[in-house]
Amino acid sequence: MHPFADKVQDQVSTLGERQLIQRIREWLGPCSPPSPEGIGDDAAVLPGSLDDLVVAKDCLVFNKHFNAETPPHLAGAKLLKRNLSDFAAMGAKPSHVLIACLLPPTTSVEWIEGFYLGILQTANAYSISIVGGDIASTFRDLAFTLTLLGFSGEKPLTRKSAHPGDSVWVTGELGGSIQENHLHFTPRLEEGIWLAKQGIITSAMDISDGLATDLDNFCPDHCTIEINTDALPISQDAKTMAADSGRSAAEHALTDGEDYELIFTLKFEADQKAFLASWNHQFNTRLSHIGTITARESEETPRICYTGSLKTFKGHGYEHF
Amino acid sequence: MHPFADKVQDQVSTLGERQLIQRIREWLGPCSPPSPEGIGDDAAVLPGSLDDLVVAKDCLVFNKHFNAETPPHLAGAKLLKRNLSDFAAMGAKPSHVLIACLLPPTTSVEWIEGFYLGILQTANAYSISIVGGDIASTFRDLAFTLTLLGFSGEKPLTRKSAHPGDSVWVTGELGGSIQENHLHFTPRLEEGIWLAKQGIITSAMDISDGLATDLDNFCPDHCTIEINTDALPISQDAKTMAADSGRSAAEHALTDGEDYELIFTLKFEADQKAFLASWNHQFNTRLSHIGTITARESEETPRICYTGSLKTFKGHGYEHF
Repeated sequence: MHPFADKVQDQVSTLGERQLIQRIREWLGPCSPPSPEGIGDDAAVLPGSLDDLVVAKDCLVFNKHFNAETPPHLAGAKLLKRNLSDFAAMGAKPSHVLIACLLPPTTSVEWIEGFYLGILQTANAYSISIVGGDIASTFRDLAFTLTLLGFSGEKPLTRKSAHPGDSVWVTGELGGSIQENHLHFTPRLEEGIWLAKQGIITSAMDISDGLATDLDNFCPDHCTIEINTDALPISQDAKTMAADSGRSAAEHALTDGEDYELIFTLKFEADQKAFLASWNHQFNTRLSHIGTITARESEETPRICYTGSLKTFKGHGYEHF
Repeated sequence: MHPFADKVQDQVSTLGERQLIQRIREWLGPCSPPSPEGIGDDAAVLPGSLDDLVVAKDCLVFNKHFNAETPPHLAGAKLLKRNLSDFAAMGAKPSHVLIACLLPPTTSVEWIEGFYLGILQTANAYSISIVGGDIASTFRDLAFTLTLLGFSGEKPLTRKSAHPGDSVWVTGELGGSIQENHLHFTPRLEEGIWLAKQGIITSAMDISDGLATDLDNFCPDHCTIEINTDALPISQDAKTMAADSGRSAAEHALTDGEDYELIFTLKFEADQKAFLASWNHQFNTRLSHIGTITARESEETPRICYTGSLKTFKGHGYEHF
């Protein structure tokens, strides 16, 4: 069987990423344990003797996640920071890294040096050791995969574990990341570790494909997420892009990819005011209360529901194929 | 800076894989701890509280490691078995897997299903859980990277840790793997775990780039490895290929890639006869005593030295670029 299909309906691009992951879970059956040990969260949690081991794996592809204009050290840093953002979403502490390089023969050694320098600087900033990897040659594509290992001291934060009544919060500002934030963002690692310690956070994930798309992976079964589109923290870059794109800045905030911010839920019994005061005492990072989890009334009720000026919004974020 | 270099001397293909890995170690400095925790062995050993955590990462690229004739389940199995062979070389027990897929949009969903089926069958055979991964789209290359996690109950077996006087042994038969063994080999996992338990094995690695090339990564500093070319276990496929290639079967055994056999050293004080008897009692896998570690007399003495019919042999195995 040839790995490339002639007919469009047989190709992964027709299936789409989400469906493909769903298929893979079906194909693997019980060999892939339920999340958070298995597929489906920002990282996998492997039960250990003292601390739970946490593992995440992410890719970086030339002309998808960076291009010829990207300084190589920023491309390298981005690969590691993408994984750090997954760890932030679990409230886990990173410790070790492995990197696989898939290189066409013409890859510039100087460029690779700059790329590793960026990984190194980021690894040092977070006290992470680089312990291995692999190198293979390709024909045309330049790509990297990184495996991040670490530990969760507290109970790891997971997706889809919120309850009706919990409030929905988001860190930082959303939208327009392609302007420059996708290369310059700071993974919300300290914030994630702090959140996991509070004992009142019921779920968390990082926003990488655009809020509107990621909400779908965040919403628990039998729940609806109500998002107040007037409460969304909109970045200056989203506003700048809106001036040209003919779409509103709030739409950019909902659909642009690569925000690398955290979305999380606060237990309904928790004191929201005291929580926000405690956050502001701890961090300069902006925190916005953007919505609520409600019980889903019926199968017909949409899982994601928008209120405010954009209440008729129907868009979605980044699609991988 | 563009990631692809115009001038040949600036390209990774000119540098070669070994040099590139050496450069990466230099670039990373103390951020990459010494082997076996850091870069340089078959897998990385992360010190833990009870058992040491072991991690390996390996790639698989279409038209490099498999092609359009390869049944997809054999390609998937090969990706996992390559990593299992690394674990065998450390004497480590595998437990969890993460897989990254780098897919052109035209990749056939049916083919990917077959590929995952092969991973699944192999994972089940070794009681390994598949706990995560990532999917990214590429432009032309179809590639996969796999991260294998597990534990080393015993002191892990490492490369380059033999002493003068130790004897050199190899499992199975070498050469001609491209004929079919590269898709059908059995990783020497049980053998590796058994070897680690004996307490008399001073070093081990798996042979993946051809014995002549891998010996270079196996030989301790200040030592020479003497290989008796008449003692090499030569596969039937190497003999078949020799009939056409004009090179001897022993040369094929020394230079052909993808044997996925183990090379290891037995402590010089150990009783070789008793060890071999104990091996034969335990396994059907052939075991050959192929050489000795000696103290390297001077900087001019070659690190690898051949005796027997092929004593003038100067070739090397597979080069990645």
